[in-house]
Amino acid sequence: MSVELSEGLKKYLDNQHAFATVATIQPDGRPHLSITWVLRDGDDLLISTTVGRRKEQNLRRDSRITIMINPPEEPYSYAEIRGTATLTAEGADELIHTIARKYTGADYPDADGERVIIRVSADRIVGSL
Amino acid sequence: MSVELSEGLKKYLDNQHAFATVATIQPDGRPHLSITWVLRDGDDLLISTTVGRRKEQNLRRDSRITIMINPPEEPYSYAEIRGTATLTAEGADELIHTIARKYTGADYPDADGERVIIRVSADRIVGSL
Repeated sequence: MSVELSEGLKKYLDNQHAFATVATIQPDGRPHLSITWVLRDGDDLLISTTVGRRKEQNLRRDSRITIMINPPEEPYSYAEIRGTATLTAEGADELIHTIARKYTGADYPDADGERVIIRVSADRIVGSL
Repeated sequence: MSVELSEGLKKYLDNQHAFATVATIQPDGRPHLSITWVLRDGDDLLISTTVGRRKEQNLRRDSRITIMINPPEEPYSYAEIRGTATLTAEGADELIHTIARKYTGADYPDADGERVIIRVSADRIVGSL
């Protein structure tokens, strides 16, 4: 069962400076971390990646994902979002431009591979944000 | 075999605003994330925690740890540090004050449980920092 995002978390995620630290599970069980842009869609989080990237490969094998949101201007506030990822190709080429416009004000400049959308539904959220 | 930190990473870690995102492995295999203060000791990273905290319990069972360093003022720079943690009680009560002085300019105010030092030796570092 998915959980709802708090109003404070929603507000922060909609901020163009809201970078996410995304943890997926390597084949050997070790956490893999990366920094990503993130777009909120209701209570879901959307992340764009390309086929073949480590987090895409990891999520195809194990869809569990943990995301940390930690506003630099409030370093003692955070939300640790534990969720499940669904990968879809449909709409992925449009989504990267939508996300790029949020963060940079412009379309994404590079055609850098086959895009996929990582849609994250939260199972549990821990933290003060 | 442990690897050395870059000069840029060392410099940033010594900054009082260098917060770390620390990933450990839950009993069910899912990554657990938390935000911590961090102190550099040569090429090792030192983190303070207390006995019973989730990351301490996780590291006792599986010493693999991944740490993300992502300067807010340079959000496209990062270092993903994959390493191994050693837990020690000796010196832990002093270390929390040393770390607190780095981040707050004062000793740590709370006697909040049995302190342990997480010493992280890097096996591999990925990133541009």
